Amino acid sequence: MPTTVHAYASPSADGDLAPTTIERRDVGPHDVLIEIKYAGICHSDIHTVQGDWGPQPYPLVPGHEIAGIVAEVGSEVTRHAVGDRVGVGCMVNSCGECKNCTAGDEQYCVNGMVGTYGATDRDGTVTQGGYSTHVVVTEDFVLRIPEGIELDAAAPLLCAGITTYSPLHRWGAGPGKNVAVIGLGGLGHMAVKIAHAMGAEVTVLSQSLKKQEDGLRLGADHYYATSDETTFTDLAGSFDLIINTVSASIDISAFLGLLTVDGALVNVGAPAEPLPVNAMALIGGRRSFAGSMIGGIAETQEMLDFCARNGIGAEIEVIPAEKINDAYERVLASDVRYRFVIDAATFA
Amino acid sequence: MPTTVHAYASPSADGDLAPTTIERRDVGPHDVLIEIKYAGICHSDIHTVQGDWGPQPYPLVPGHEIAGIVAEVGSEVTRHAVGDRVGVGCMVNSCGECKNCTAGDEQYCVNGMVGTYGATDRDGTVTQGGYSTHVVVTEDFVLRIPEGIELDAAAPLLCAGITTYSPLHRWGAGPGKNVAVIGLGGLGHMAVKIAHAMGAEVTVLSQSLKKQEDGLRLGADHYYATSDETTFTDLAGSFDLIINTVSASIDISAFLGLLTVDGALVNVGAPAEPLPVNAMALIGGRRSFAGSMIGGIAETQEMLDFCARNGIGAEIEVIPAEKINDAYERVLASDVRYRFVIDAATFA
Repeated sequence: MPTTVHAYASPSADGDLAPTTIERRDVGPHDVLIEIKYAGICHSDIHTVQGDWGPQPYPLVPGHEIAGIVAEVGSEVTRHAVGDRVGVGCMVNSCGECKNCTAGDEQYCVNGMVGTYGATDRDGTVTQGGYSTHVVVTEDFVLRIPEGIELDAAAPLLCAGITTYSPLHRWGAGPGKNVAVIGLGGLGHMAVKIAHAMGAEVTVLSQSLKKQEDGLRLGADHYYATSDETTFTDLAGSFDLIINTVSASIDISAFLGLLTVDGALVNVGAPAEPLPVNAMALIGGRRSFAGSMIGGIAETQEMLDFCARNGIGAEIEVIPAEKINDAYERVLASDVRYRFVIDAATFA
Repeated sequence: MPTTVHAYASPSADGDLAPTTIERRDVGPHDVLIEIKYAGICHSDIHTVQGDWGPQPYPLVPGHEIAGIVAEVGSEVTRHAVGDRVGVGCMVNSCGECKNCTAGDEQYCVNGMVGTYGATDRDGTVTQGGYSTHVVVTEDFVLRIPEGIELDAAAPLLCAGITTYSPLHRWGAGPGKNVAVIGLGGLGHMAVKIAHAMGAEVTVLSQSLKKQEDGLRLGADHYYATSDETTFTDLAGSFDLIINTVSASIDISAFLGLLTVDGALVNVGAPAEPLPVNAMALIGGRRSFAGSMIGGIAETQEMLDFCARNGIGAEIEVIPAEKINDAYERVLASDVRYRFVIDAATFA
C-alpha cells in the first residue's frame, strides 16, 4: 500500500514550488523508509525544475541532499536498521550489473542510473525527491551518516560533498599538493574544506575578494580574484589540481595555464555552452581538462566517514519549507553562505 | 672555429627551400659533432617555415628528426663516442635546473627548451636543423640509436615516435586496454605500431577506409571511418585511450563519447583554433581531454630501446634533398606513406 506524504512540488517550469502530497511506494523487501529531517537546496534543483536541462514530469518534488532517520526496513534489509541516521544523494537506483556498476561507479551506470527525482525508476514509477517528509529507497542507495556530523550539516554532503570529494581524492589532493578551487559557493566551500582536510595547500580563485575572509576561515591558504589579470600571470604553472565549481562559462584555457606539468582542471559543473579549449594549453604542459559527476555509493560512504573523522559539515542556513521560493532567488543571486537546508518538519 | 656545412634552407615564409651553407659551432668540451645520415620531414617543419606558428629567423634550416654517426666528441663527453649511431629530436638544450628539467621533462623546461631549429640557444646563437650534413649538439641531447633499427627508419622516431610513445606509455596502453588512434599519417602510423607492440587492442579512426589495409598491416585490430556516423554510436564508451594525431579541428566532444569511464583523449597536435568541448562529455564519464608534447630525453631513449626490441621503425620514403619542396606539397596533400626521410648525402 503506498503511503501519502507531505511534500513541496514545482507545478511547471515557471511556477513557484507549493505544498502538496505525493505517494511513496510500499516498503519492499529491500527498501528502507526514511523519515526525512533535512533536505539541501542544490543549484541543480533550480535548473531542473525550471526545465533548463530538458522537460520534466511535473508536478516535480526536487531534492537530492537528504538526511534523516530510518523509520522502517524491508524484510530482507541487512545494511540499515530502524533509528539509523542515514542519507540519500543524487541517485536511488542503477542496474547493478553493468561494468560501471560492478566497479562501484553507479553514477555512470551504462543502463542509466536512476536520479532521486524526475527519473523513471526500474519499476516504471517516476521518482520524487527530498523536499518531503518521507522517502522509500532501496537499501543499497542509502548511506550511513556517522555520529559527529549533525544531520542538517550532513545533508549537503550527499551532493556538494561527494561532487568535490571524488575528484579531489581521485586526482590525488593531499600533502605537498597545490589545489585551487574556482568559485566559493555551495560546491566550492565544500571543496575548500575537504581539500584542506586532505592536507593540500588550498587556493580559492574567485571573481572578487568579497568572500576572502570566509574562504580563509574555511581552510583556504590563499585567495585570489580572477577579475585581476595579474592573478593569471602570478599563478602561472602553480597548481597540481584545479576544481572548477562554476557552471557559468569561464575561460578554461586561461585557467589551464595555471596548472603544473601533468596538472588537471576538473569541471564538476556543466555549462550549457561548449567551452573553447586551446589545445596548446594542454599540450604545453601535458595537462588535462577533465570532468567528474558525484561519486559511486561506496565512495560516497567513504566521503561521509572522512567528513565525520575530520569534523566537516556544510556551512548552512536552515529554512522552513515556505521559504523555498525565496531561497531559490537567493541562490540565483549567489546570496547564500553556503547552502540552504530545509527543515523537513515544516513540510507537514 | 666554426665549420661550414651544406644544408637546405627556407629563405622566407613563402619561398622554396634551396641549397645553402651554414656554420656549425666548434665542438665544445660537452659537444658531439654528428655526421647526419638521414633527416625526416615532419609536418611541423612545413608549418614552421611557412610562418604559421609565428615569425622565424630566415634563412631557416628545418629538421628535427635526425639520425647519424658521431664524427667527433668534445674533451668532456662521456656518453657518446666516435662511430656511435645517434639521433637528435626536437630539442637540443634546456636549462637543466628547473623542476621540469630535473624531473626529466626537458620539453617543458620552465626557462624554455631550445628547439632544434629556429630557436635561440643558451649561447645566444640561432639553432639550425637537420636538413644538413652535420650538426653539433650538447651530449645530453644526443640519443643512442640501438642496433636493430636502420638509421633511415629511425630518424622519424625522434619526433613522431616519441610524440606518440610518450602518451601511450603514460596513459597506460598495454594488454587489456582498448586504444584508438585518430588519423593514420606520420604520427598515427607510429602510434598504431607502438600501441600494438605494447599489447593494446588498437583501432584506427580515420576519415575514410582508404588506408584500411595499411592500418591492419601496421598492427591495428580494427579500422573505422569517422565520416560514417554509425561509427560514433557503434563505438560509444569503447576506448580507454584515444590518441588524436590530427591537427585539423575535429569534433572533440563526439570523440570524447567514445571513451570509457576514466578514459582520456590525448591531443598530440595543436589546431590553431580553440576546440569547443562539451563539459557534459567529460563529466558524464569522468573523462579527460589532455595534451602531450614529444617527451623528455630519458623517455626518448626508452622509446628508441623499446622500438629496437620490438623491431619498430617508421614506414618511410627516402628522397634526395632536391625533392624536399615536392615532398612538402605531398605532405600537405596527405600523399605520403608515412614519412619522407631525406638522404643527407644529397645535401652536399
